[in-house]
Amino acid sequence: MAPSIDPEAHPLEVPPAAVTIPALSFIIECEKLKAVERRSRPIGMPRRENSAEHSWTLALMAMTLGPEINPAMDMLRVIKMLLLHDIVEIDAGDTFCYADQSGKAEREQAAADRIFGLLPAERAAEFMELWHEFEEAATPEAKFANALDRVMPLIQNHANGGGTWSEHGITTEQVLGRAGVIEGVSAELWQHVKSLVAAAQLAGWLKS
Amino acid sequence: MAPSIDPEAHPLEVPPAAVTIPALSFIIECEKLKAVERRSRPIGMPRRENSAEHSWTLALMAMTLGPEINPAMDMLRVIKMLLLHDIVEIDAGDTFCYADQSGKAEREQAAADRIFGLLPAERAAEFMELWHEFEEAATPEAKFANALDRVMPLIQNHANGGGTWSEHGITTEQVLGRAGVIEGVSAELWQHVKSLVAAAQLAGWLKS
Ligand SMILES: [Ca+2]
Repeated sequence: MAPSIDPEAHPLEVPPAAVTIPALSFIIECEKLKAVERRSRPIGMPRRENSAEHSWTLALMAMTLGPEINPAMDMLRVIKMLLLHDIVEIDAGDTFCYADQSGKAEREQAAADRIFGLLPAERAAEFMELWHEFEEAATPEAKFANALDRVMPLIQNHANGGGTWSEHGITTEQVLGRAGVIEGVSAELWQHVKSLVAAAQLAGWLKS
Repeated sequence: MAPSIDPEAHPLEVPPAAVTIPALSFIIECEKLKAVERRSRPIGMPRRENSAEHSWTLALMAMTLGPEINPAMDMLRVIKMLLLHDIVEIDAGDTFCYADQSGKAEREQAAADRIFGLLPAERAAEFMELWHEFEEAATPEAKFANALDRVMPLIQNHANGGGTWSEHGITTEQVLGRAGVIEGVSAELWQHVKSLVAAAQLAGWLKS
């Protein structure tokens, strides 16, 4: 039987353990990413995906596809960026990529300040820099990481028979507009995206 | 409204997209790890944790704690191991760490053969080697990765007011027996584990 657990509501029920490693308070805070729901669904599952398991998939994609796509990339940097890239959603929430993005940058910076601020200074600075690198999408590593973040929902929507495309009446133009970053990263990935979009159009899952 | 999606039940409803990147069939297969339930629960959540989001937490812990605990480690290798370490559970299921472990190694090897077999040869060989390294727990990187896999459920059970310890009547001896690998990896982590266990004993969450 699943107990209804809310440690903030019952702080005294958890006896304190001596915290010998300050960075663990960051790890405990990051558990909350498992409760942040995205619009997309894992392939074959009726429930929505959370941002923690989504981040796992992207890191796994990076180590799987990265060596073929660009072996010169710093793969550790790519993977760190992907593991961190959505943590700000703990405070700022997931913003649907086809929704109004106003205020998003400010909300997310405040979230990064608070959450990375739980870490010792050196680690906080490293993680903040990695998160900014991902957001700016200027380095080869950040472009690749961003491309994976765009590709995976397309793969999920295609495999799920339309997914969030059909649910929200998304157009081919909207999808290809957001997917443009992929073209510069990998001709193969871009080819795959065009193939997914063509199949989705034929099936009537994307409005033209 | 969440549609009930099961692509295997309706294969003809998904029009084929030209698969230009064979490794993507591995990524699609790995979506199933999001449906593998562990015994533990994310901190503060009534639902059980899945093995995909668990793997994300461990990779994040590695990049957060690793540089302090042992900066000489190959951190990319540690993180790759952690991202991959539970993928065999897609076929073999999660075996509760305090349950009978017989047949587990054979089931998991067969799963690794099948799932990593979806990858191009070079990547399949790399991932199989990383998975074996994690399982053997002999290198500093694999010992650290295994230690994190042992520590996180203790942190979750403590923060959740007993969690799987209370639910399954686990003893202090069982917990410390499994946590031994941590002692050789980091005196600080070991100190933290002893502190969590002491708090749990005081609260009556662990049987003596
Ligand atoms: Ca594990």
